[in-house]
Amino acid sequence: MFETAELGHKLSRREYKQRVPALRTELLEAQRRLLTDASFPTLVIFAGVDGAGKGEIVNLLSGWLDPRWLVTRAYDEPSEEERERPEFWRYWRDLPPKGQIGLFLSSWYSSPVLRRVIDDAPLADFDEQLDRIVAFEQGLADDGALILKFWLHLDKASQKRHFNQLENDPELSWRVTETDWKHWRLYDRFIAAAERTLRKTSTGHAPWKIVEGVDLGYSSTQVGTLISAAIDKHLARTRRRRAVVQAHREADAADLAAAQAAEAAVMQTEDAESDAAEAPPASVGQPTVLSRLDMTRSLGKKAYTQQLNRYQGRLNQLHREARARKLSTLLLFEGWDAAGKGGAIRRVTAALDARSYRVIPIAAPTDEERAQHYLWRFWRHLPRAGRTTIFDRSWYGRVLVERVEGFATEMEWMRAYAEINDFEEQLVEHGCVLLKYWVHITAHEQLERFRLREKTPHKSWKLTDEDWRNRERWDAYEQAVNDMVERTSTRVAPWTLIAGNDKRHGRVAVLKALCERLEAALDQGGKGRKK
Amino acid sequence: MFETAELGHKLSRREYKQRVPALRTELLEAQRRLLTDASFPTLVIFAGVDGAGKGEIVNLLSGWLDPRWLVTRAYDEPSEEERERPEFWRYWRDLPPKGQIGLFLSSWYSSPVLRRVIDDAPLADFDEQLDRIVAFEQGLADDGALILKFWLHLDKASQKRHFNQLENDPELSWRVTETDWKHWRLYDRFIAAAERTLRKTSTGHAPWKIVEGVDLGYSSTQVGTLISAAIDKHLARTRRRRAVVQAHREADAADLAAAQAAEAAVMQTEDAESDAAEAPPASVGQPTVLSRLDMTRSLGKKAYTQQLNRYQGRLNQLHREARARKLSTLLLFEGWDAAGKGGAIRRVTAALDARSYRVIPIAAPTDEERAQHYLWRFWRHLPRAGRTTIFDRSWYGRVLVERVEGFATEMEWMRAYAEINDFEEQLVEHGCVLLKYWVHITAHEQLERFRLREKTPHKSWKLTDEDWRNRERWDAYEQAVNDMVERTSTRVAPWTLIAGNDKRHGRVAVLKALCERLEAALDQGGKGRKK
Repeated sequence: MFETAELGHKLSRREYKQRVPALRTELLEAQRRLLTDASFPTLVIFAGVDGAGKGEIVNLLSGWLDPRWLVTRAYDEPSEEERERPEFWRYWRDLPPKGQIGLFLSSWYSSPVLRRVIDDAPLADFDEQLDRIVAFEQGLADDGALILKFWLHLDKASQKRHFNQLENDPELSWRVTETDWKHWRLYDRFIAAAERTLRKTSTGHAPWKIVEGVDLGYSSTQVGTLISAAIDKHLARTRRRRAVVQAHREADAADLAAAQAAEAAVMQTEDAESDAAEAPPASVGQPTVLSRLDMTRSLGKKAYTQQLNRYQGRLNQLHREARARKLSTLLLFEGWDAAGKGGAIRRVTAALDARSYRVIPIAAPTDEERAQHYLWRFWRHLPRAGRTTIFDRSWYGRVLVERVEGFATEMEWMRAYAEINDFEEQLVEHGCVLLKYWVHITAHEQLERFRLREKTPHKSWKLTDEDWRNRERWDAYEQAVNDMVERTSTRVAPWTLIAGNDKRHGRVAVLKALCERLEAALDQGGKGRKK
Repeated sequence: MFETAELGHKLSRREYKQRVPALRTELLEAQRRLLTDASFPTLVIFAGVDGAGKGEIVNLLSGWLDPRWLVTRAYDEPSEEERERPEFWRYWRDLPPKGQIGLFLSSWYSSPVLRRVIDDAPLADFDEQLDRIVAFEQGLADDGALILKFWLHLDKASQKRHFNQLENDPELSWRVTETDWKHWRLYDRFIAAAERTLRKTSTGHAPWKIVEGVDLGYSSTQVGTLISAAIDKHLARTRRRRAVVQAHREADAADLAAAQAAEAAVMQTEDAESDAAEAPPASVGQPTVLSRLDMTRSLGKKAYTQQLNRYQGRLNQLHREARARKLSTLLLFEGWDAAGKGGAIRRVTAALDARSYRVIPIAAPTDEERAQHYLWRFWRHLPRAGRTTIFDRSWYGRVLVERVEGFATEMEWMRAYAEINDFEEQLVEHGCVLLKYWVHITAHEQLERFRLREKTPHKSWKLTDEDWRNRERWDAYEQAVNDMVERTSTRVAPWTLIAGNDKRHGRVAVLKALCERLEAALDQGGKGRKK
């Protein structure tokens, strides 16, 4: 989940200075439009790792925005006044009114996370508090509120480096307290709680956005850009909805034609506006999880044969044991066209007993499947105890091809991350071993392979016009993959990214990851991890 | 919550015979339209008390509907196949396809409720299972599914009577098993679990409807009518949404004018259809919680003075003790215009220390309040520890006046029940004593009082045109009150219905209920009930 925020995103001093003036104008204009419209409040919530710059970002934003229409909040231990009311009283009291922005430097997330990390509160209590938060935010969103949540992340080493740097500076050393070091020692517990928080509270209406906090120039401009884009988009959406409602009302009342003309005019403007708001944020040129894969890895022929044999042998043994102990396994493969998914799958199945696995290729849904919820076709193929199911493409189509090609609406694919996490949690809780592979190749390598396919008669059927079309949208797909890893790579069900430019390396990497996961699950007692 | 289903709803043999032919036609036509549209599945879920006729209703419906487009499901202990997959696998497998209806005689609710009632599963586990259900249903609803949930209810005595009748009939006695009697002995635990289930899983997208199960003629026609109305309404809503989306797409593409004309035409039809679907179901003429209040109760002048003094004295003492023990109290009054809410409130406050209570009259919201979520104005006035706050009208305006007058959309007021239950749960969990009064008078009594106000110079200011307008919508308000009690009268926060035709009786009843609740809370240790 945090892989995407450990890539070293940063802006040079020059880039930052270039970006800020325009960003400030964008923010002020978005704020002005928000105030004029005055139909919903905007809540911007910050959370994350100490030292990742939450406070600094809020300070910068406070300077960039018009302070008259801005409230900034942070919460300490509840006061006597506050303790005498239900816990959420103070948050309700502090909500920004319609048309205004509230920046929450700490929020309703702080105390549940700290209670879990520091006081070791039981998981059930933690979940209950997260449920209450979901209900609270859902209620506000249903009322029209725009809720933006930023999780500022630092990896453990960067956090340590950050504290050390401060301590070594005589003028800044006061900023690092014993509490900071105490929290640092709890880093792993904190990240586990953070992941659960993000997984349970990232809803379609109020999704989290993880932002890397190593470089303030990057994080502040990234957050600022996302805020102004989100405000514009929400304004457009709200206005469009209002126009439709209005037109309905008026149509009901009297002058049908006039109402429709009005609606049409508004919609036309809004559609244009909404498209503008869809423009990608300032992250262009920043690394993604894919760009950081070491694509130079390769394996010589001899080493390949050796390792292939070794891992296939090991897999065969593990697979028998899993079968005997009724441990089921689910593998899914996603990746670029021509990345070598099929070849990798064949190297896996070669090591399995043919009676106990099935490969499910996911293409266009059947009529029967089309008449059901999009997850239905995957539920139906879940493996029985002790069996293995391999999905060649999977439910992630919802947030990849369906997103990029516009087959699913934004609400649909945004919602899908939570639906998928929930689905996978049910699988893993039931004891299934789940492996999710993204097989990656570079755009250049893909082109080579396409050309080779064109030239090779017995492979040319594999190459379709669609492949070329998909290739044109490489950047959009890469963004979608990055978001997918960010939102669905959880401790319960992590992604395994495979560097596939060298097919031999890719195939062995797939087998190796599978063996390791199976071994760990069998060591744990065979029925996978239960919560 | 179940008060509305313990009123003895029934249909005479004649009424039933009269109703059924038309209902069957309605159902078949709704089913046919559903199939033609084929854009969403309909799930009808039955649950409730043993002996309340779930099975009989499903049998009747299966006969009334076209069996080709209907699936009926019930679940026993999971099979080996099913146990080898996550719990929800079997429910996913059985979902009806788009255009079809699934009747679930038992469902994902059965096992969580039974585990809680019979095996005494911990509350946290129960809640977790209910959360999973909410997520499951939400996912289906987001995908467009229509989900109808009927809870068939019998009070404890009726359930016993039902079993006895069967046992005494030699031909039917086999229908009553030792399990039935075992469940009957657990009735109270069952109802507690049922209430929690309904409270946690009654969402805007998939609300429960409680149906009294004493008389199969009533319950089956009621359920049938609600199903056919809901299908028509959902069809209209879906088609309207589709038309809007379609028009947007086309407007984007090319012929703007043609698209708008198409949209307008569809909307006009749909609006009419949707209004038709809003027609009240077959419950006309059936008793409501209000119609069953004993309105003849009265109190003589002397007895009144005596009791008033007694309860006010007792209240004063309890109030001091509550103050000392930091127990806060919240009273809210709802009721018909001229029902005597103000007079009752004054009789309460007369017994309190003026420094420790506040009366908050709820009229039109202020500018500041209007710029916030509708619950914000109530959150801000929550009492501090040891204090009392009295709301003269309250957050229930959302599901009463705003519903009846159309100020809130149906989605908004349907959602409000869950929002309100959640809000009140937070209050009560925090230890606040919450009393909710509905002060009832008959329509005839109201007219008398209006006339008296007209004639009495110092009271005539109290009577406005709005009062007369509200009076015209008596039936709609009575339906709204009935639904409100059904959906928000919980063990955590029950409604107290006051028969107010006799003012003296009403005032004393209000004081008495308050004294009893305060006393119970103080006995329990002062900080109300914690979960």
